[in-house]
Amino acid sequence: MMTEDTICAISTAQGIGAIAVIRIAGPDAFTVCESIFKPAKMGKVLSQQQANSIHFGSIHDGQKDIDEVLVSIFKAPHSFTGEDIIEIACHGAPYIQQQVLQLLTKNGARLALPGEFTQRAFLNGKMDLSQAEAVADLIASSSEAARRVALQQMRGGFSTELMQLRERLLWFIALIELELDFSEEDVEFASRKDLFALVEELKSHLKRLVDSFSLGNVIKNGIPVAIVGHTNAGKSTLLNALLNEDRAIVSDIHGTTRDAIEDTINIKGISFRFIDTAGIRATADHIESLGIQLTYNKIKQASIVLMLVDVTDPDAKIHEGISEILGKIDNGRQQLIVVINKTDLLDDEEFHNRFTKASFSELTGNNYVVPISAKFKNNIDTLTDELLRTINLQAIDNDELIVTNARHHEALSNALVSIIRVQDGLNNGISGDFLAQDIREVLHHLGSITGQISSDEILGTIFRHFCIGK
Amino acid sequence: MMTEDTICAISTAQGIGAIAVIRIAGPDAFTVCESIFKPAKMGKVLSQQQANSIHFGSIHDGQKDIDEVLVSIFKAPHSFTGEDIIEIACHGAPYIQQQVLQLLTKNGARLALPGEFTQRAFLNGKMDLSQAEAVADLIASSSEAARRVALQQMRGGFSTELMQLRERLLWFIALIELELDFSEEDVEFASRKDLFALVEELKSHLKRLVDSFSLGNVIKNGIPVAIVGHTNAGKSTLLNALLNEDRAIVSDIHGTTRDAIEDTINIKGISFRFIDTAGIRATADHIESLGIQLTYNKIKQASIVLMLVDVTDPDAKIHEGISEILGKIDNGRQQLIVVINKTDLLDDEEFHNRFTKASFSELTGNNYVVPISAKFKNNIDTLTDELLRTINLQAIDNDELIVTNARHHEALSNALVSIIRVQDGLNNGISGDFLAQDIREVLHHLGSITGQISSDEILGTIFRHFCIGK
Repeated sequence: MMTEDTICAISTAQGIGAIAVIRIAGPDAFTVCESIFKPAKMGKVLSQQQANSIHFGSIHDGQKDIDEVLVSIFKAPHSFTGEDIIEIACHGAPYIQQQVLQLLTKNGARLALPGEFTQRAFLNGKMDLSQAEAVADLIASSSEAARRVALQQMRGGFSTELMQLRERLLWFIALIELELDFSEEDVEFASRKDLFALVEELKSHLKRLVDSFSLGNVIKNGIPVAIVGHTNAGKSTLLNALLNEDRAIVSDIHGTTRDAIEDTINIKGISFRFIDTAGIRATADHIESLGIQLTYNKIKQASIVLMLVDVTDPDAKIHEGISEILGKIDNGRQQLIVVINKTDLLDDEEFHNRFTKASFSELTGNNYVVPISAKFKNNIDTLTDELLRTINLQAIDNDELIVTNARHHEALSNALVSIIRVQDGLNNGISGDFLAQDIREVLHHLGSITGQISSDEILGTIFRHFCIGK
Repeated sequence: MMTEDTICAISTAQGIGAIAVIRIAGPDAFTVCESIFKPAKMGKVLSQQQANSIHFGSIHDGQKDIDEVLVSIFKAPHSFTGEDIIEIACHGAPYIQQQVLQLLTKNGARLALPGEFTQRAFLNGKMDLSQAEAVADLIASSSEAARRVALQQMRGGFSTELMQLRERLLWFIALIELELDFSEEDVEFASRKDLFALVEELKSHLKRLVDSFSLGNVIKNGIPVAIVGHTNAGKSTLLNALLNEDRAIVSDIHGTTRDAIEDTINIKGISFRFIDTAGIRATADHIESLGIQLTYNKIKQASIVLMLVDVTDPDAKIHEGISEILGKIDNGRQQLIVVINKTDLLDDEEFHNRFTKASFSELTGNNYVVPISAKFKNNIDTLTDELLRTINLQAIDNDELIVTNARHHEALSNALVSIIRVQDGLNNGISGDFLAQDIREVLHHLGSITGQISSDEILGTIFRHFCIGK
């Protein structure tokens, strides 16, 4: 399907830059641009120039020149959306960007909706729906793992896998429907044994994908970590020490973090969102001040709770603090790591005497205990190893398929339910037509991921969350 | 002069966009990019591809693919800097932008300094210094007049004029120096009469350029307008009414205004910076509260003071307020406009009776008085006309040369001083060698504008204020 109107949008980030890129896509892209672009070298009009070529000239509004620009041309069907596309690189003043955009709309283009270029790429068959969604994920990626998984998905790794599953099921459905045509003869074209094996295989496959979402979600959204502890326990020193692990990457992320209250730190490609618990200002005398509801709510959001302890505090204060936190975390869902800070203030023997006491081990139970010196960055590696231990890094390193998208997770979960129904049906020897119906449901759910089955409503929901210009 | 190393920078605005452009310039641009770019279609390496062509492919770090990108290639000397230039358009995640940038520096490019691309364009003779400075002005332009003047200057309008002045002076210097060679023979190659005429012409020319800076400064930085008045006089309604004059442009500017306290409104292409005087909360009983120092300081910053008056207030309150403000403004430098708001609440006769009284005219003196209804947007045009009256709009419309750059203004002022010295010398019949020396000074000052005479220090100061990536 080819779309009928021509859309335009600023494709680079908002604000002042050296240059900005304005993208125009659609059947009139050349007509619109030729009416406002004057090439510096006279010659052929843009539409007669070679595809994938760049042209210097000026944008004009009648007699008035607006800016000097570079114009890149792409010709249908060999472009991102499959249509004619022109990209105007103008000077990066927001005022100029807006002037060019207004001029384009005055000359026949209309402003693009969020994600409309990618939506057109999908509608024109340049990519399937899960690939289109990966484009948005790639643009939003702020860690190595997120980038890696999104790129893999954008390139169709996930789509290929789903396609193969679908094709194998379609083959069986064809056979079963053939049986139905010959139902009076009671033949069995589709070997129930083979089908059972396939269903078993699909079930474990789907289950793996569904399960991968807990990792995928972490990759996409980061792992929420609450740091709790007394105010002088060294929280900010610890954050800085962690930051230093990967300074170049962190400083970038900083600039893009919307929520100034949270610090996001990338460790070995995984984002950890450190949740601010500045509300905790417990002292030995007022340990109950830990109990304020705000802090508990924040702890509830975390997957990992870092309990930061000052090694020079009295035993009673430390034990009371740890007990307090232990009583507040959900052992099934949350991991407590007790971080004993300021080890530089004790020598080895002192440290040994304090923390090998039975009472302390008893207290901390199965939870990790990591002694560090945040100030001297001692043993920070051990702490980051503990943080990473919750994550299946190998799956990422091996480029295994990891589901990061909640919509995909839901569809896969539904497909899994349906495939289990197929399996039950096989076990109970239900008739071919019921079997076919259940298999069709699996196909439906798988097809909704790649967009073979989609509705305007689904598309609207997906592309609404894209940025404008993509 | 060709530069020796290869530089790279992100050229689009900071933050998340659909795409971002990373620019690489220098002799190794191709080598660096070929080591990290794999074209989707196998074929020639980038350096053997046609100039001004675009190539799809992926950026990789060894075995690891970073992103799918479009690469645009420009070949020396036909590029912005005159060197080989490659622009990589990657997905707009800040994380990805940084990854690509790090990869470029790992493979032999270094991070560009602010304005370094434009500095190279200057050093390689692609533009003179005043044109290079206009690039920065164009990127920073936030009004029609600022864009227009910057574009004209970038295209060399100003440079051409200065060049012509220089050439005519150089011709005279040559003749005078010829005289010096034949000094024993007492000949006069350079007609003193012609020189006097030229100097007279140059003087008036330079004076016009120097004087144009008061307009140029306004074009570049906007006109500071303080709105003072009682809190219920309708200040925000007035700002909204003014905003509506040119809504599309204003809303853009809004997003880019760094200082949230000030409202910048474009009226017929000129920026007016409305200075917040929220501190003024005078009432009839406490008119002296106007006197707080903060408000006076703000009034001092303004070129135009809008005194907003509520027509329904008692005479005494209005008169007292106006007198107060009149006592505070500098008549030589500042323009007072008394705006009588809420005229919709009086009929014509009532209004006439109140404001044609001798006492009121006496009070407001030569200052403009504009009755409006901000609520119903009545007579707003008259007010904007008054605001624009201080500005020589014709000079802008006629594309006259307008000096917007403080450095140029200083150099032109110095050239003017020197040319007056030349004139005095001619009047006093000083000898040719002294005359030549004074003319050389004029040449020096003019040459410093276009960069024929420049130092590393001057260049450093100029380009330091550019954005990175340009």
